[in-house]
Amino acid sequence: MTLREEMTLLARQAKAASRQLGKLTGEEKNTCLMAMADALESKAAVIQQANQADLETAKNAGLSQAMLDRLALDNRRVSAMARGLREIAALPDPVGRVLDERVRPNGLRLRKVSTPIGVIVIIYESRPNVTADAAGLCFKSGNAVILRGGKEALRSNLAIAAAMTEAALAVLPQFPVHAIQLVPRTEREAIPELLSLTQYIDLCMPRGGEGLIRAVAECSKVPVIKHYKGVCHVFVDRDADLKMAETIVLNAKLQRPAVCNAMETLLVDKPIARVFLPSIARRLAEKNVLFYADAESLALLSEARDQHGNPLRLQPATEQSWSTEYNDYALNVRIVDGVAEAVDHINHYGSAHSDAIVTRDEARAMRFLNEVDSAAVYWNASTRFTDGGEFGMGAEIGISTDKVGARGPMGLEELTSYKWIGIGSGQVRT
Amino acid sequence: MTLREEMTLLARQAKAASRQLGKLTGEEKNTCLMAMADALESKAAVIQQANQADLETAKNAGLSQAMLDRLALDNRRVSAMARGLREIAALPDPVGRVLDERVRPNGLRLRKVSTPIGVIVIIYESRPNVTADAAGLCFKSGNAVILRGGKEALRSNLAIAAAMTEAALAVLPQFPVHAIQLVPRTEREAIPELLSLTQYIDLCMPRGGEGLIRAVAECSKVPVIKHYKGVCHVFVDRDADLKMAETIVLNAKLQRPAVCNAMETLLVDKPIARVFLPSIARRLAEKNVLFYADAESLALLSEARDQHGNPLRLQPATEQSWSTEYNDYALNVRIVDGVAEAVDHINHYGSAHSDAIVTRDEARAMRFLNEVDSAAVYWNASTRFTDGGEFGMGAEIGISTDKVGARGPMGLEELTSYKWIGIGSGQVRT
Repeated sequence: MTLREEMTLLARQAKAASRQLGKLTGEEKNTCLMAMADALESKAAVIQQANQADLETAKNAGLSQAMLDRLALDNRRVSAMARGLREIAALPDPVGRVLDERVRPNGLRLRKVSTPIGVIVIIYESRPNVTADAAGLCFKSGNAVILRGGKEALRSNLAIAAAMTEAALAVLPQFPVHAIQLVPRTEREAIPELLSLTQYIDLCMPRGGEGLIRAVAECSKVPVIKHYKGVCHVFVDRDADLKMAETIVLNAKLQRPAVCNAMETLLVDKPIARVFLPSIARRLAEKNVLFYADAESLALLSEARDQHGNPLRLQPATEQSWSTEYNDYALNVRIVDGVAEAVDHINHYGSAHSDAIVTRDEARAMRFLNEVDSAAVYWNASTRFTDGGEFGMGAEIGISTDKVGARGPMGLEELTSYKWIGIGSGQVRT
Repeated sequence: MTLREEMTLLARQAKAASRQLGKLTGEEKNTCLMAMADALESKAAVIQQANQADLETAKNAGLSQAMLDRLALDNRRVSAMARGLREIAALPDPVGRVLDERVRPNGLRLRKVSTPIGVIVIIYESRPNVTADAAGLCFKSGNAVILRGGKEALRSNLAIAAAMTEAALAVLPQFPVHAIQLVPRTEREAIPELLSLTQYIDLCMPRGGEGLIRAVAECSKVPVIKHYKGVCHVFVDRDADLKMAETIVLNAKLQRPAVCNAMETLLVDKPIARVFLPSIARRLAEKNVLFYADAESLALLSEARDQHGNPLRLQPATEQSWSTEYNDYALNVRIVDGVAEAVDHINHYGSAHSDAIVTRDEARAMRFLNEVDSAAVYWNASTRFTDGGEFGMGAEIGISTDKVGARGPMGLEELTSYKWIGIGSGQVRT
């Protein structure tokens, strides 16, 4: 088979499986998920053997220790995958929710009802635990999934998917065998081939670095839901409770700097800059944060000293700094004159992910919440809350900064579409 | 300016306008819409002069009479545009609806609120009245719009857009002058240039023939919402009320054959085919319908006679017939053995637009409604109801058969996205 033929077969099988998935009840799906969870644990040895082979190859290929760490499936990670599937089983069925209902003057009853999307392609990098999470969420929402993980994790991913499929078939003979498929080819060219098959594939969700996501968005003919990066802001307004602002800024930057909802840029309102900025910078300097500062804050911060009496780590911000996601102990700092400048900065340089204002002034807060064009906006809370778990979605398959389809954290409901059902008694159009 | 520079300018202006549109209140938007409606009437002469110039050029270029009819803006059509804008003004503001609300255990209040999408490109063919409708709906939903109509209607479209913009500016000085823009260039290449500008444009909606829509979907880098065609089905089940089935079939095929929600294929359940098929065919033959029939129904129908005693207009269906949208007095006919075969046929050959079952059997109806993977599915009602007006949306900008973003008829609410607003009192993530 050529690559194109192989991808077409995969996609066609997925479409057929998606038709079968639509017929399963919530209970049947949960039975399968529980069996899948058990299988990951009972077949941990088989999975870890495959993972060991992946690790050997990766080591020989000279992958970094960080990459090897991400790839490794120890007992803790296998248990976490199983626990994840059990948690998904416990969530309500996202399919069949009545989203709207109306009776027309002619008596026609219209119902807008949530449905699966159909066939979803998920493209991700090295962590094999994504395989179980993504497959579990897609299955629960009635979608067939085609998974394309990192090539270094292929054997691990195949072992996980096989364990899940076998377990489901054992408890539910009508489980569609192609509900969870992995792209068995590692060539880069497999992705554009797959994502040209608009007749079979309904959605693609790339997860990973900006380069991967841009490449996928560039080549895809099917809809893509994604976020490129998280350049998140906290704006400390002139009427902020400065103690609260300090807590939020420290949390947004330091609690977990490597994630997409961590703050990358601190905007400080001019009238409070002289008071607030040196003091918050000293606190951030305790974690050795490197500052990229605009001219005004550079002047203020160059006089500041850290707890050891040393100058802060300071660099002048460049035009590029403002749109950089550091994912690290680094922070852009800028003094702005009021909420309008803050909003303009965020809409211009931000990534439309998560942005916060700290203020006691309700009018300015409302203006910020309304005008900042981001998936999640916060008033007096940390940007770090943009997360399916924190939003009470129970599980998360990713975060979207797009505006067509889901926006913000994506849980089970965000993996559904809808249809209109019209129930009549012979109505015709006149 | 190069074409690329010109399209980039247009798109950048639209993005800036969309930021301003987000600040307008519902009342301000309605004031503008009413003024726009008045202006279309008071400037009817200017608009019709531009239209006259378009008509001259089109006549000289040898356009068909049907095309010229579509292009012409008589008084009735100008009034209809104005009435359309007043109806849009009377509809509720689709922006700012609270779609979900939850308070997290940490006290963080989360609200999911509808927002404009941003910048929408609408590509359409010859009818200039689409300009007013589309601009009105996009404006009311807070979106900046870039319109690309048929090149033969450019002067008419420019006159309509200018009248609307001037009227809005006269009543609301902060009306963003680039809220409604027309692509001033007629080259085909303008479309791919425009639809490559993902940093400014959020959505494209092509309206028109399948060729146009496929070309747009093929070249676009921004999300596209569309339907290619309407290959709609009515399945008459063995337990149908045959009188009701006749009424629905005649309506779905004959009430307006040229539209996308008209029936193109009639599926008849085997046990009732001998009774139902010749009789319904005779009724359809009164309108001189041409039948494309499968072998079994061909055998049944070849014996039938129309009201004048003549044989029916019959052709054997080919594989291609089943996915053809005739938009005419033509109909595919197929005998299937039960609801499962009907569902398979529809999911295989249909266009996922609108499909109906006629039956008294609730279990089979539910199966059909659940398993047919179309934007709208009906039980005992005509497929012709798939329409924004009939659904009570008040206005319609198009119909979607996609599954990411809006599906089915698209009114004002379907022109919105959403954001998450988190209101806290200093919450941070632990």
